Amino acid sequence: MNKLEKYANLMLREGVNLQKGQPLLLTGYVENYDFVRLVTEQAYLAGASEVYVRWVDEVGARLRYLHGAEELFENYPEFQRLMFEHYNDRDACYLHIVASNPEALKGASPERLQKWNITSSKALKFHTDKTMSGAFAWCVAAAPNKEWAKKVFPELSEKEGMDKLWDAILQCSRVNNDDPISAWREHARVAAKRAEFLTNAQFRSLRFTNSIGSDFTLTLPDNHIWQGGSEKTLDGRTFSANIPTEEIFTAPHRLGTNGRVAASMPLVYQGDLIENIVLDFKDGRVVDYKASKNEALLKNLIETDEGSHYLGEVALVPHDSPISQLGILFYETLFDENASCHLAVGQAYPTCVKGAAELDDEKKKELGLNVSYEHADFMIGTPDLQIMGTKADGTNIQIFKDGNFAI
Amino acid sequence: MNKLEKYANLMLREGVNLQKGQPLLLTGYVENYDFVRLVTEQAYLAGASEVYVRWVDEVGARLRYLHGAEELFENYPEFQRLMFEHYNDRDACYLHIVASNPEALKGASPERLQKWNITSSKALKFHTDKTMSGAFAWCVAAAPNKEWAKKVFPELSEKEGMDKLWDAILQCSRVNNDDPISAWREHARVAAKRAEFLTNAQFRSLRFTNSIGSDFTLTLPDNHIWQGGSEKTLDGRTFSANIPTEEIFTAPHRLGTNGRVAASMPLVYQGDLIENIVLDFKDGRVVDYKASKNEALLKNLIETDEGSHYLGEVALVPHDSPISQLGILFYETLFDENASCHLAVGQAYPTCVKGAAELDDEKKKELGLNVSYEHADFMIGTPDLQIMGTKADGTNIQIFKDGNFAI
Repeated sequence: MNKLEKYANLMLREGVNLQKGQPLLLTGYVENYDFVRLVTEQAYLAGASEVYVRWVDEVGARLRYLHGAEELFENYPEFQRLMFEHYNDRDACYLHIVASNPEALKGASPERLQKWNITSSKALKFHTDKTMSGAFAWCVAAAPNKEWAKKVFPELSEKEGMDKLWDAILQCSRVNNDDPISAWREHARVAAKRAEFLTNAQFRSLRFTNSIGSDFTLTLPDNHIWQGGSEKTLDGRTFSANIPTEEIFTAPHRLGTNGRVAASMPLVYQGDLIENIVLDFKDGRVVDYKASKNEALLKNLIETDEGSHYLGEVALVPHDSPISQLGILFYETLFDENASCHLAVGQAYPTCVKGAAELDDEKKKELGLNVSYEHADFMIGTPDLQIMGTKADGTNIQIFKDGNFAI
Repeated sequence: MNKLEKYANLMLREGVNLQKGQPLLLTGYVENYDFVRLVTEQAYLAGASEVYVRWVDEVGARLRYLHGAEELFENYPEFQRLMFEHYNDRDACYLHIVASNPEALKGASPERLQKWNITSSKALKFHTDKTMSGAFAWCVAAAPNKEWAKKVFPELSEKEGMDKLWDAILQCSRVNNDDPISAWREHARVAAKRAEFLTNAQFRSLRFTNSIGSDFTLTLPDNHIWQGGSEKTLDGRTFSANIPTEEIFTAPHRLGTNGRVAASMPLVYQGDLIENIVLDFKDGRVVDYKASKNEALLKNLIETDEGSHYLGEVALVPHDSPISQLGILFYETLFDENASCHLAVGQAYPTCVKGAAELDDEKKKELGLNVSYEHADFMIGTPDLQIMGTKADGTNIQIFKDGNFAI
């Protein structure tokens, strides 16, 4: 097996944990058709009953935003909704191979972007809810494309940039090991142990401070669960939702965040870069926000709905994580979020509170879990980030010291 | 405008005659994503309300045939059927840009190919019927891919082959003119005049003979119409169903063909090449058939249903047509059929008999029009082809002499 085949098999075995006779819905970008074909073949060899490729073309999407009729953004076509239902009904697993130009939708109208965001989120809520509650196995992984490589390595030629981005992706995903599957499992085991330690500690609140302007406290709901490494579907199958993954994450209480949050990296959102995000929270809600670039997109993000004004995720990633140590700004959340502590506004993973996975939205909220059509991670980690945890009995324990775990 | 933009605009204006505010359903092959994006942009600039790309990947299709579960070939997914219905309901036009590896599905099981052929034909009959009766504008055009170029120009390097195939496609499509649209219209005008002449002549029967073994007579139904150049939708919009097109065609009476038909070129069918096809007809029906290669695919073709045992089209193309004069065997029906007289087994275009376009299948058959889920052209023209026409009064008129029009 060559490296790309090993990478494909890591996605299929550890990512979506494809079962014999199971369909795979594979989202792939047209410019990556060669690699998508390779994954398709490996999936069949691993026993997939069907591989259906949902092709994505960001260039076509941009043209649609620029020139399409207004009603396109107001109605989600039933045939597209039904595609997800078709594979949900057949117990499929879902693999998404991103190859994203960070500025793919530059110039598109923020109003249209938001209209479509809300239209599609509503239409696909049934699917997103299943995704986030672990009703099936899913995985997001990556493959390079030219525009992305150019953005990450602007000083290199196209070919050198592509090669270097492939190398970085394979290294972050531990495919450069002789036995990537074993390396992945060992990594997941260590992450699970750390998550278990934090879950057992049941901190009441966490205070984050650093020199770029973050100073905020968030509270954690009763019976919260920290997750890391691999996850389990409701029926007990192990899967890894992200390749790579370095994070240990849980859900903050939706009403418990206070203070100022300063993002530490640019955020790719709706096809362009938002820079220098600052959010002010009061009792969980964003009461003020600003950005130095593309603030209109930040407005879209925060004002998607009421729930997107609240946090849905807090994730801990040490500054000495292998991805962070590469020193590459990927302009892609899948990688940047695994090089840095991060938060997400919007929907919480209901698997982060014991017994919440199959509750309805109102019951989730009662337990402190946030509910929204949105879920967007943004990075807050820095080399001088301090995190102090406070337990129910008032004890303070330093969790992060100078960007890394202190426990 | 560069040549590719001119080509795109020929497809959009003369091919599907895209109207302002009209959606375009664009079928494109993933390996041609660059050109598909160019056509998408030109379509929006020409006023399309939406361009929805239906991406095709023949490599993925082959893997599906080789490794997919049996039930995939027995059921047509509702969400895919609904996609056509969605665009039918919105009065879309349909552009199909083929980039076909002639041996794309080599090695696939003929039984599976046939199962899927019948499953998909039944599910999409509503759409095919609309296509063939001119309920909307549609067009098939082409763009090269590597495997296709290699098959056509095996002696050239990959780059040289691709360049030469692009050149040939653009030349055949008259895009090498300064003003391709005017050149296309003039060409269509000449073809329409020839078709009008033949329609007015109302031949009763045509006898085809040549030295490779064809000797057969077919009859033509009452009130048959020869078509050529451009066509009209039921509501009167001009369109060109094929780019390029050199043929003048009509429907033979389904019960009137007798004798032996020998194909003059290999036929790409179900993703592989059928060679040296010979068909024997009695009272319209194929009573015997053979091929020197891939006879199992020929069996699939002839035995799709009862209707695929009968002819649905006869088309006249002079041996001195520009495409024929290139001397290139394209291994692609869109080009090869326009370099050679051809027949089709299967469904007749109901527009080939006056007043038949909106009749039901039984009424079409009463008028002599063939009805089938299949419609496959195959080439019969040679430099020594003779065609003798006989009129209702018994007069014989030579229509083709030594491969070219004699009238």
